[in-house]
Amino acid sequence: MHATIAQLIDVVAKGNEHDIAPLLAADVAFMPPTYWATWHGREPVAAVLGHVGQEFSDFHYRRIMGDGVDWALEFQCKIGALDAVGIDLITLNNDGLIQTFEVAMRPYKSVGALREAMNKRVMTDPRFLKYKDALG
Amino acid sequence: MHATIAQLIDVVAKGNEHDIAPLLAADVAFMPPTYWATWHGREPVAAVLGHVGQEFSDFHYRRIMGDGVDWALEFQCKIGALDAVGIDLITLNNDGLIQTFEVAMRPYKSVGALREAMNKRVMTDPRFLKYKDALG
Repeated sequence: MHATIAQLIDVVAKGNEHDIAPLLAADVAFMPPTYWATWHGREPVAAVLGHVGQEFSDFHYRRIMGDGVDWALEFQCKIGALDAVGIDLITLNNDGLIQTFEVAMRPYKSVGALREAMNKRVMTDPRFLKYKDALG
Repeated sequence: MHATIAQLIDVVAKGNEHDIAPLLAADVAFMPPTYWATWHGREPVAAVLGHVGQEFSDFHYRRIMGDGVDWALEFQCKIGALDAVGIDLITLNNDGLIQTFEVAMRPYKSVGALREAMNKRVMTDPRFLKYKDALG
């Protein structure tokens, strides 16, 4: 397994953005399960991923598939009382950092709960006033 | 790539359940993106996948990751006018047939449109009266 993927697995569920940021390319793109838009840049993406990690509970990775720069990390978790399964779809750049990070999940109801929880988190994190230009 | 995966890629978007059924184990389990439940058995799962394939348009697979019995097939498509990205999470059995088929997708809104469309399809396909015991 690539060292970046091994480190991501180790830190992602802890929801500590300072552990996640060094794994991301400066111009990383993050596509969330909740809406059809893309977050750009290490600082806002690390902040979003930190919030997501704090919202997930009972998180564990299942299968790790891929090689080279292409990886799919299957996970299971809870969002509040709801079960969820998801997958981190990752592309690494030539420096071994995360260039794209797209998350698909199931089922619909659990993603709705995540969307509501994330909207609340982003609205109460003052940094997202500054980050709003990072979403396009 | 495993021959079953190559055949699945060839037939899945056509929405023809008769092409899909021979790739499935008799006791296949299918977990849809739309709700937290599992369809069991080749005939009902082929019927569900046939309907899904007919609901997706502009479908194409992107990256195919995995090896052995573990596969992740990344795809992009439209559901009506809405863009969607998804991933087929597949486990093969010892005979090379699909034993589990779980689908995670993004974003929330597109999965909601799929859920509504699938409910309509299942309600108007009389076989699903018989298949309802296959969902648990």
